Amino acid sequence: MRITIIGSGNVATHLAAAFKNAGHRLVQICSPTMHNAALLAYHVGAEAIDDLADINADTDIFIISAKDDAIAAVASGLAQFNKLVVHTSGAVHLEAIRHFTDNAGVFYPLQTFSKTKELDFRSVPLCIEGADDSITKQLEELARSVSNNVYRINSDQRKVLHLAAVFACNFTNHLYSVSQQLLAGSELSFDMLRPLIAETADKVKAHSPVDVQTGPAVRNDVQTMARHLQMLEDEPRLQAIYEMLSQDIIKNHNKAGGDK
Amino acid sequence: MRITIIGSGNVATHLAAAFKNAGHRLVQICSPTMHNAALLAYHVGAEAIDDLADINADTDIFIISAKDDAIAAVASGLAQFNKLVVHTSGAVHLEAIRHFTDNAGVFYPLQTFSKTKELDFRSVPLCIEGADDSITKQLEELARSVSNNVYRINSDQRKVLHLAAVFACNFTNHLYSVSQQLLAGSELSFDMLRPLIAETADKVKAHSPVDVQTGPAVRNDVQTMARHLQMLEDEPRLQAIYEMLSQDIIKNHNKAGGDK
Repeated sequence: MRITIIGSGNVATHLAAAFKNAGHRLVQICSPTMHNAALLAYHVGAEAIDDLADINADTDIFIISAKDDAIAAVASGLAQFNKLVVHTSGAVHLEAIRHFTDNAGVFYPLQTFSKTKELDFRSVPLCIEGADDSITKQLEELARSVSNNVYRINSDQRKVLHLAAVFACNFTNHLYSVSQQLLAGSELSFDMLRPLIAETADKVKAHSPVDVQTGPAVRNDVQTMARHLQMLEDEPRLQAIYEMLSQDIIKNHNKAGGDK
Repeated sequence: MRITIIGSGNVATHLAAAFKNAGHRLVQICSPTMHNAALLAYHVGAEAIDDLADINADTDIFIISAKDDAIAAVASGLAQFNKLVVHTSGAVHLEAIRHFTDNAGVFYPLQTFSKTKELDFRSVPLCIEGADDSITKQLEELARSVSNNVYRINSDQRKVLHLAAVFACNFTNHLYSVSQQLLAGSELSFDMLRPLIAETADKVKAHSPVDVQTGPAVRNDVQTMARHLQMLEDEPRLQAIYEMLSQDIIKNHNKAGGDK
């Protein structure tokens, strides 16, 4: 397929590389920052532009990988070309594009991307949605050319997926940061925790997280929790997070026990 | 070394197997539940007992892998044998054993263990502490026979490590559970999130978590956060967790920005 990408951020960068590796042709990369557009365009053999006025209509699909609140404005500018227009956001409804063109869809990669970190794109779950069946099929084919994990997901489900991803990824990474800060206060290296973090994630590859929960809260070890809260006396925010997550673990496991 | 283990839980099970694989001799496994003692003892070629009265003094080290509040009582019963006595807890001070014998130490594996999940023990960080230099050296040698990650850690540092591990492992796993619950409400499979969880952990193998933070909070994407909070309307606990972690991410990154 001939593909045009609007955006040059983390998602755009990984998507463009995956498309190129799968043999698609990247036509243009458009980004308000010409430097970023040029860098990505160079890597994938596309033309770099920094203005929608310079769009080349000779393409098959426009992929908008912009900030959520910019998607509608970009879509309105692209509708005139009568080509398929999709966005890559977990949080934005299909309607944000369909408002301007029926040739609309969503191509949402459920993954955390950083420009400096390579990953195996074939394992990235791609959640696609088309304004009609024929678009869905086109997007499905495109998605399968770069990933083995393709799902048809509607806008309501995608909102839930995005919310769940905030808990499983963004909040999780923040807890890693918190643990690093705690160690730094005692001049301990974050390296000491890295095997634990890796194993915690590895466990849920084959298990349900609720079945492998460990720690003071699930044991209802009141003494240890009280001691930990005391250690966090000077960090009221962390104390509140500790308290709240522990209470939720306790509630969750009592409920689970009662249901069994 | 001749090793006797008091306990048959997750830590005891993985430790005993690691010692056996390294060529040590497991003398006895003691657990109040004879069935558990017998099962573990069978796997590592030891004798199973369910009463400290049946302890065989012909051993080199007693490793107490019991509940935190049971450690002192067990140590008091073992002190009479004049052998090295250590515990495996992150949260208990060396004094809990040294109160009864100077031949005291700590052998704390900083990892999350489940009986049903194998792992590479050589990558497990072992945090050791001895009541004197000669004990520390003995424990260091024993630790190195089973792991490549051996650290000398005093009781105050170990408390911080244990607290940090609660954030990096126990709370993280709970966030996985929360995300699974959210998906279940929309009949979406947890499989969809597994690649994201794996990649989130994989990122911090080589990066500092604060440098790879993604999501609405670090972008200060107020609209998305407001929409997410609205989606959690029927789950006030999750709403509070979402709010608190998001605020902490925002605060953390503003601070980091200000420092740079």
